[in-house]
Amino acid sequence: MIRTWSTTHIGSASDRHVPTLLAAWAGEAAVDHHCHPLLRWPLALEAADLRACFTESRDPAQLEHVPQTAVYRTALRRLALAFGCQPSEPSILTLRRMSEPGQYTRELIQRSLTGLLLLDFGYAPPGTMTLAEHRQALPVPQREVVRLETLAEGLIERCRRVDTWLDAVRTELEAAVRQGAVGVKTIAAYRASLRLAPQAPAATRDAYARLRRSPRPRLAGDELCHPLLMVAAEECARLGVPLQVHCGIGDADEDLGQASPLGLRPLLLDGRFDGLRLVLLHCYPYHREAAYLCSLHGGVFMDLSLAIPLAAADGARALAEALGMCPWSKLLYASDASRLPELYFIAAHLHREALAVAFSDLVGRGVLDLEEAVEAGRQVLGGNARRIYPL
Amino acid sequence: MIRTWSTTHIGSASDRHVPTLLAAWAGEAAVDHHCHPLLRWPLALEAADLRACFTESRDPAQLEHVPQTAVYRTALRRLALAFGCQPSEPSILTLRRMSEPGQYTRELIQRSLTGLLLLDFGYAPPGTMTLAEHRQALPVPQREVVRLETLAEGLIERCRRVDTWLDAVRTELEAAVRQGAVGVKTIAAYRASLRLAPQAPAATRDAYARLRRSPRPRLAGDELCHPLLMVAAEECARLGVPLQVHCGIGDADEDLGQASPLGLRPLLLDGRFDGLRLVLLHCYPYHREAAYLCSLHGGVFMDLSLAIPLAAADGARALAEALGMCPWSKLLYASDASRLPELYFIAAHLHREALAVAFSDLVGRGVLDLEEAVEAGRQVLGGNARRIYPL
Amino acid sequence: MIRTWSTTHIGSASDRHVPTLLAAWAGEAAVDHHCHPLLRWPLALEAADLRACFTESRDPAQLEHVPQTAVYRTALRRLALAFGCQPSEPSILTLRRMSEPGQYTRELIQRSLTGLLLLDFGYAPPGTMTLAEHRQALPVPQREVVRLETLAEGLIERCRRVDTWLDAVRTELEAAVRQGAVGVKTIAAYRASLRLAPQAPAATRDAYARLRRSPRPRLAGDELCHPLLMVAAEECARLGVPLQVHCGIGDADEDLGQASPLGLRPLLLDGRFDGLRLVLLHCYPYHREAAYLCSLHGGVFMDLSLAIPLAAADGARALAEALGMCPWSKLLYASDASRLPELYFIAAHLHREALAVAFSDLVGRGVLDLEEAVEAGRQVLGGNARRIYPL
Repeated sequence: MIRTWSTTHIGSASDRHVPTLLAAWAGEAAVDHHCHPLLRWPLALEAADLRACFTESRDPAQLEHVPQTAVYRTALRRLALAFGCQPSEPSILTLRRMSEPGQYTRELIQRSLTGLLLLDFGYAPPGTMTLAEHRQALPVPQREVVRLETLAEGLIERCRRVDTWLDAVRTELEAAVRQGAVGVKTIAAYRASLRLAPQAPAATRDAYARLRRSPRPRLAGDELCHPLLMVAAEECARLGVPLQVHCGIGDADEDLGQASPLGLRPLLLDGRFDGLRLVLLHCYPYHREAAYLCSLHGGVFMDLSLAIPLAAADGARALAEALGMCPWSKLLYASDASRLPELYFIAAHLHREALAVAFSDLVGRGVLDLEEAVEAGRQVLGGNARRIYPL
Repeated sequence: MIRTWSTTHIGSASDRHVPTLLAAWAGEAAVDHHCHPLLRWPLALEAADLRACFTESRDPAQLEHVPQTAVYRTALRRLALAFGCQPSEPSILTLRRMSEPGQYTRELIQRSLTGLLLLDFGYAPPGTMTLAEHRQALPVPQREVVRLETLAEGLIERCRRVDTWLDAVRTELEAAVRQGAVGVKTIAAYRASLRLAPQAPAATRDAYARLRRSPRPRLAGDELCHPLLMVAAEECARLGVPLQVHCGIGDADEDLGQASPLGLRPLLLDGRFDGLRLVLLHCYPYHREAAYLCSLHGGVFMDLSLAIPLAAADGARALAEALGMCPWSKLLYASDASRLPELYFIAAHLHREALAVAFSDLVGRGVLDLEEAVEAGRQVLGGNARRIYPL
Repeated sequence: MIRTWSTTHIGSASDRHVPTLLAAWAGEAAVDHHCHPLLRWPLALEAADLRACFTESRDPAQLEHVPQTAVYRTALRRLALAFGCQPSEPSILTLRRMSEPGQYTRELIQRSLTGLLLLDFGYAPPGTMTLAEHRQALPVPQREVVRLETLAEGLIERCRRVDTWLDAVRTELEAAVRQGAVGVKTIAAYRASLRLAPQAPAATRDAYARLRRSPRPRLAGDELCHPLLMVAAEECARLGVPLQVHCGIGDADEDLGQASPLGLRPLLLDGRFDGLRLVLLHCYPYHREAAYLCSLHGGVFMDLSLAIPLAAADGARALAEALGMCPWSKLLYASDASRLPELYFIAAHLHREALAVAFSDLVGRGVLDLEEAVEAGRQVLGGNARRIYPL
């Protein structure tokens, strides 16, 4: 038995390399592979609007609690630092009111260091910019990701039968990709369980018939959402574009207990989805589960968007946890931001910092040297997305 | 593309402010919003009794493992420090035997810095103090939280039918609140699944009939526990008192796989529970899920009791994780202590320290300044409870 | 109200004692209570083979991502340090090709500081050593753990009926133990759900009849796997050997969503399994759940094998999380290594380091003094296994 054990190579947890990594990545224009459009400006911003942007809650009573969250406090401080004002709601709102809105917005987007936006227009509250407006408003290249459920809902009226409808979905997805969409996004987790299971054809037919009879058809339930998701997965595999799947946290529409990415297992086993690139969005608090899928299946990728920024320091911790099993060649950078430029700015800052903390720690522990960590982070910020999306 | 990225404002993980925060909070008499009564004294304490207090296990074989747990070692050390003896079981037990029991108990409770106890008398092993005895024994204000299942079991004999029984539950809850109870606590997780679902009325009727025929009726099963919980939730909303729900870890009675707070979703969506204040107790290891619910629903609150102290350092880590999404205006301080004053003392110390570590870290990371952290901790220690309970 | 609060005894997170602990443990020959046999040498090793050893994936596309994982980078660095070569794939592979394979292997196994291997031969790809070969190849004592499903599949042909088959399983388990097996291992999680539930006898009978008709019978499904597991649990209790249950992460055969150890609850409640020692293997990301079971049931034990090394730094974090509720008298050391000596070496290093980091932190926080931490680690490395296995 050899009695010696060299310990000189064992490093410690360390934040030491954070500034170096951030500085090295400052020249890296990120691909934000999952975000939503801004609202049109000028926009009279009230405290409630700013708060609403930093929570997924739509409960007015919750807005009183937002100032007592780590993400909102961080947002006030970072915005104040950027603009040289006090880190308080009134100061930020005043500064904003006094700024030229286009200039203010472009400034925040530029400071987000984003080089390409992949935009999902499927969630568009009144006042949201169109793609054309968005492209004009921001001096940043932009591509579209098509939202499956929105596209599919638009086809219900003209399709009498469920199989016709699913065929129409295939046709329209192909058309969307031909017209420039670089991916498909599904919010099945908001409308059904993510525990994918084969649905009885009769149940699907009946559900579709009921849906068509309703005055304002809104897709929901496993009977329709699961077959739809599977059809989209087949088409994405065939068309060579990634399928983004919302997993984990979201708004109150969703049952988080049904939103683990582990429920997507049928997409990973069935040969009909061969070649599919599956991108798991958000994932938190199932990020270790998502990382496990990324460690097993060549076609699975993930991000921690939404959790970063909303879970603040715990989002950063989740990213470090995910890097336990997830190869950094499969981790993607995204903001999931929408509506206000403040959110893009804060999401970008917190995401880059979370990456810097996680990779600094890997350097401290002797897993990577600093140069390798810089390169790994560059892949997360953009290289990986440029490899898996048809950009 | 702007190439500069200021990193001067990015702080690091830090325990640096822990002593300052603990000192600042020392003057804050906490509201322990969830605990249980002491046993009557004098009490001849054996090692097995002390160990049994620091585990939820009732398996005698487990007691041999308790001294190899982080919480028990911590408890011995903290008690030894408090009393100036050796940190060993025999020393602690000897010191205890030599002390005047009332004085010893009051000393430990006072050192817990608790200013108000909200007591659940529903779990009362032989030798437990009554509320009157408890009030006389301790110079600390005390209020009662009524345990739903205990109250409901007491009404079975006189109610032939399940609807009469549920009506009687409503009446008795109202009476309890009128007599001073400040909240209702449910241990549905010990008797049924927490995945709340509507129960078929016939199944509920049959289950009730079976229950009444048993010689010692013990409520169990979704058919009875879910309707009971929903009735209690309606009454709590109407009476303006919080409903405490045991979630996450507990004793061997419970199936932890069925005890996630996410199963309470029906209480959060159905309009019949509007205005309900729902307090999720313990939560671990579903604390990130609980924090997510707290981030979405104005009426949801949480604590990390039981996990702190039983999960020792991981309880503190869980509290930091929960502060990712949970506003600190919705996090409550509690011990879940029972039986022996040692447990109140240790729970209090570890909880304050966990808060100090979590908030010190937020200060280190530049989320809060020190003054704000002091104030946030004060809210957790008492302000939040004083706002949501009718005290 | 006492206003003072001593903070002098509150320690901080600390890696400070890591070198001391590793040095103290260097003389401790570990019991690797769960590992698999090596492949026969000489073995021409390609990059793909080395990579394949550090992932559970069998997807060729995944092998391109393995070099972008923390565990693989760590492995390259540690091997390079051990052999004084460059930390790159080509260097390691060249060095290996130039070495005498037996010597190279024995060197790595010796540097793993393992004093006893408990080997599961149930997974044996072509070229795997037999127990006799393995004993001859390595100068380390070795014992066998019998794999339930492999043993049971071997009995199908000669058993017409399911009850005869289950009886034959009992007989063969007893024979295996009499011939020296020190435990039984089940991979039910790879073949069925781990949510144990009573199966209808008719369903079990039908499933068995179907299985016998298939040309190459492969056990799968709850109808057969659950009764088999319960029979094995009864026999293990009777024979006084532990039952090892694969929980948590594994390969793509497994549905991780069905593999939580919480599903084993029936084994913990039913008196027919009294005295059973249940050893939860891997557990990640359900390690907090596993630790909870270890805190409640005297007969439950756990390890973090596979997660250490595959989850790299997050495996170490998981071990620290598990030590929240799991007594260190119930935590076991294991590598789950197989095939290549490199994996045994890396698993051993990362496991000892994870233990050192976790216990250093407990020392830093004032839970243990350094001497106690040394002793606790020794128990994890070998003492606990020597107590629960009939060695």
